[in-house]
Amino acid sequence: MEFTGVYHKTSEQMSYPLNEDELVVNLKTGYDVKRVFIHHGDPFEAGILGGKEKWTGKREEIVYKKRLRHQIWWTTTLVPPYKRCKYYFELHTDREVWYYCEDGFLTQEQMDMEGRMIQCFTVPWMNPADVNRTPDWVNDTVWYQIFPDRFCRGVSGAEGAARDSAAPEGDIVPWRKGPVTNEERFGGNLEGIRQKLPYLADLGITGIYLNPIMEAESNHKYDTTDYTRIDPHFGDGETFARLVKEAHALGIRVMVDAVFNHCGRRFAPWQDVLKNGQDSPYADWFMVHQWPLPDKHEDTRDGRFYSFAFADWMPKINTNNDEVIDYFCGVCEGWIRDFDIDGIRFDVGNEVSHRFLKKMREHLKKCREDIYLLGEIWHDASQWLMGDEYDSVMNYPLMSGIHDFFLDKSMKKEEFEYMINRCYTMYMQQNNNVMFNLLDSHDTERLMNRFHDLDIFYQQLAVLFTMPGSPCIYYGTEIAMEGGHDPDCRRCMPWDELDRAQNRERIAAMRSLIRMRRQEDACRSLYFHFPREYENDRCVEYIKLDGQQNEIEVLLNCSDEDMEVRPEGEILFARRFEDGVLESKGTLIRRKERR
Amino acid sequence: MEFTGVYHKTSEQMSYPLNEDELVVNLKTGYDVKRVFIHHGDPFEAGILGGKEKWTGKREEIVYKKRLRHQIWWTTTLVPPYKRCKYYFELHTDREVWYYCEDGFLTQEQMDMEGRMIQCFTVPWMNPADVNRTPDWVNDTVWYQIFPDRFCRGVSGAEGAARDSAAPEGDIVPWRKGPVTNEERFGGNLEGIRQKLPYLADLGITGIYLNPIMEAESNHKYDTTDYTRIDPHFGDGETFARLVKEAHALGIRVMVDAVFNHCGRRFAPWQDVLKNGQDSPYADWFMVHQWPLPDKHEDTRDGRFYSFAFADWMPKINTNNDEVIDYFCGVCEGWIRDFDIDGIRFDVGNEVSHRFLKKMREHLKKCREDIYLLGEIWHDASQWLMGDEYDSVMNYPLMSGIHDFFLDKSMKKEEFEYMINRCYTMYMQQNNNVMFNLLDSHDTERLMNRFHDLDIFYQQLAVLFTMPGSPCIYYGTEIAMEGGHDPDCRRCMPWDELDRAQNRERIAAMRSLIRMRRQEDACRSLYFHFPREYENDRCVEYIKLDGQQNEIEVLLNCSDEDMEVRPEGEILFARRFEDGVLESKGTLIRRKERR
Repeated sequence: MEFTGVYHKTSEQMSYPLNEDELVVNLKTGYDVKRVFIHHGDPFEAGILGGKEKWTGKREEIVYKKRLRHQIWWTTTLVPPYKRCKYYFELHTDREVWYYCEDGFLTQEQMDMEGRMIQCFTVPWMNPADVNRTPDWVNDTVWYQIFPDRFCRGVSGAEGAARDSAAPEGDIVPWRKGPVTNEERFGGNLEGIRQKLPYLADLGITGIYLNPIMEAESNHKYDTTDYTRIDPHFGDGETFARLVKEAHALGIRVMVDAVFNHCGRRFAPWQDVLKNGQDSPYADWFMVHQWPLPDKHEDTRDGRFYSFAFADWMPKINTNNDEVIDYFCGVCEGWIRDFDIDGIRFDVGNEVSHRFLKKMREHLKKCREDIYLLGEIWHDASQWLMGDEYDSVMNYPLMSGIHDFFLDKSMKKEEFEYMINRCYTMYMQQNNNVMFNLLDSHDTERLMNRFHDLDIFYQQLAVLFTMPGSPCIYYGTEIAMEGGHDPDCRRCMPWDELDRAQNRERIAAMRSLIRMRRQEDACRSLYFHFPREYENDRCVEYIKLDGQQNEIEVLLNCSDEDMEVRPEGEILFARRFEDGVLESKGTLIRRKERR
Repeated sequence: MEFTGVYHKTSEQMSYPLNEDELVVNLKTGYDVKRVFIHHGDPFEAGILGGKEKWTGKREEIVYKKRLRHQIWWTTTLVPPYKRCKYYFELHTDREVWYYCEDGFLTQEQMDMEGRMIQCFTVPWMNPADVNRTPDWVNDTVWYQIFPDRFCRGVSGAEGAARDSAAPEGDIVPWRKGPVTNEERFGGNLEGIRQKLPYLADLGITGIYLNPIMEAESNHKYDTTDYTRIDPHFGDGETFARLVKEAHALGIRVMVDAVFNHCGRRFAPWQDVLKNGQDSPYADWFMVHQWPLPDKHEDTRDGRFYSFAFADWMPKINTNNDEVIDYFCGVCEGWIRDFDIDGIRFDVGNEVSHRFLKKMREHLKKCREDIYLLGEIWHDASQWLMGDEYDSVMNYPLMSGIHDFFLDKSMKKEEFEYMINRCYTMYMQQNNNVMFNLLDSHDTERLMNRFHDLDIFYQQLAVLFTMPGSPCIYYGTEIAMEGGHDPDCRRCMPWDELDRAQNRERIAAMRSLIRMRRQEDACRSLYFHFPREYENDRCVEYIKLDGQQNEIEVLLNCSDEDMEVRPEGEILFARRFEDGVLESKGTLIRRKERR
């Protein structure tokens, strides 16, 4: 047997309670393992621990599996009657049988050896307080990300044309097409977003993720000046409360961006530190290492204080400090109370302390039980998804995986399968179910920019809309807006061009993808498999199942050849598909008929 | 390359801050990997994330490794200047080079592919609040476990012979040799322990672990009646406070046993539930599923309520309940304040909720920063040793591993090496350094009982006293007391026989092992390797290093043949070693000369 291929442990996503009753147990083995059995039972079935007891479990075969690149992922769900479970595995290759316990592999002879201490895997107790719970509504949500300065400039008041008296005016440049710079301010605002709510509702959107809207100097607002005040460029508290209220009335949730890893240089506590140095009551709110703090304007590689990405105008906040933790818990509580928001996205969500996040979650879930806590984490976020910090993270590993498959033509369709399976075996099901899936954002080039090809663009969107979790499109994706890396991905939304035939067509395509996502349970479910029914080795094929009798089939022809596909099922979405032929770069999503 | 053999992730013991500055990174590979390099650097060295940046790290070879049964464990320590670290590995077999990133294995060609999104491993920020910290003093401690009813019956007062007026008398049976039952009470007490403190100090003991001493019905006291009152059979608060004070004066720490997973049937809140049912204010302090609670005396397999190991007289406490959590935090705080204890051992420490333990740790470390929190966990306890619950657990995996090696003669010395390496690659170094190592306890048969062989007995003790962590001997081990499984392992300490020549000799041997442990830094250190210098395939050999220039060599001849050993170094402990010959079942520990 390929011993190194076998892996299990009783923590993280390998073994965890799905709820108060069900225990999910996952196991990795090499491809030489053909059958797996689990022996499981109550640890005290044979008496109290100590070496005297002769424990034997109930033997059951594990039948569900996923293919990873080098290993098989076996999965089963147990229902331990007394919330406790002890188990070991029995692995069959074509020629051997091995017993896999916590301390390694044993032969039948060793299992039977008198006096040997069999170290089983143990789940001692499934405590309700420790169950990882995520908000139910998120899986049903289709998100639309808005960069406020560039989405829509709305004017309020009965006159329509009258300017919002509170909004600063002087530095605003006219709305325009094409490239923008990070120094420009285009005047997009909350009133503009509010006015476009019917547009979003019509598109099928059920959640808005807003880039920061609290007072800050820059146009992106990631350098917060005041965490308790809506940026005057964007509006005021009243406008925002109204926006959320009207969004809710249209069935649209609202998530805001929280920048707690660092602040802007005008944040009052930082100003106090600059002024009063070590005597400031806020001296420990930051990470300053040199007193008096040198007055210079250059990056922070000299370590005089820590800052975000070495930017001296974005000092790191010390989220290890309990006063700081209390302060920001209060800030978020205020947002929930004053604006009735549904979710908070934590910017640079991996650099703040775990202590901060644990206290934050505890506090916020008391304020609003179903608030969605999303971390900006680009890498494996297992540590943050144990049930006591975030509900979810931005699924950049999925984004990268999808991108790389379309980029790297040497990858066969199995690689796509392995990549998807890798992404969906990283975390617990509760988190997978509310993963924030995206293909681009204000931090990446735009999806359309990657290949400058509308067909590949829709192939990737087809994946996005059929994956477990919750899909998010970046504003303008409905018209396949182009845009390179920051700041080019933050262009103004060209409202006056939306009516053009080409855009109308693209919007219709997006609407149909969203409708499909919302109508078909199978699109949103956690269940999928890759049947490998077609020979074409760059034709991605997978089936989504809704847990009932319904299936969705997804076919993406990523090869250079056209291919014939079986005529079956009702078409939910298609491109470059005609007369039973799925052309190169074609997409086909069908409701599959039960055989 | 053997891809399945390669494993790393950025959580648990694979990648963690050792302190505020040092980051430990571990990697597993198959034995086909001959050299490993890590490419590491600051994530923002090349700018802000997003796919545009071209990041390259500094390349460094990883040279330290341990052999596991099927894999090599590579380990290195980095010092990220800005507390952030991004990295990937470069793996060399004899014929291939692969780059190992978070999403898998890449060729040089794929690494260089324009636009590919390289998913590196990332440690985003080493926050001080999240560093796993354990008490410094534990590694220097040699523990002695006492089962109070059977250790020593002391009488207090000036007369000496006068009975302690507070102690109940009626049901006490005379102290005796040989087997005991769980129904008998022998009258061992705190005053007896206090009187034996000089004996323990003379043995070299620096820590006492006491089985429960709070009021309970049984003789073992694991069925607590009152968590705030010393059991009258054992003494009172005054006696205990005096015991701790005198122990401290002799350089001996004191750890008590806390039974919070369940209580005894006379615990007042449980009595209230029995009386008032669902109307009791304590109804949710337990896990009752049937109201009114049936009045029957039989095991709890019917699920009417949950209890410890189905015993109806030990109902499970609901450690998910915040009121319960607060109550027990208060109980422990009282123990620290009133008795000045140094450690708390949590009985059935794996069944209580993580929530309970996190709150308990936070509370207790505020009361006493260096309190030692030890969990009774028999299996892989990674989840409880992340830095915010226990400092340590009872190292039963090590106990089982040592036992099985001596039992199973088919195991070669490499198996011993793999077992030790497995045990010491399960947790972070901070935890390994304070692991509670034991070879037996009140829950197992006695060490001497396993093989009824004094030589094998000392071979195992030689391992115990040279392993990282903190060794504990069970009372009576200094005279190699026999005793089978519970209750036989709880016999009375035969004080009147201690003076016999055989016992004096055994006590002297124990004293020399303890002295060696305390004097030689190398015995206590985390550093060891297995040189394989002797051909005998059941001769365990390992070197302990103190991080300076000093080394200890341990040789255990577990084969049936005598063997010649090189004449070198000063002997620290030896058995069955004469004229350069280490006989079968012989033990030799020497301070090695630097070559």
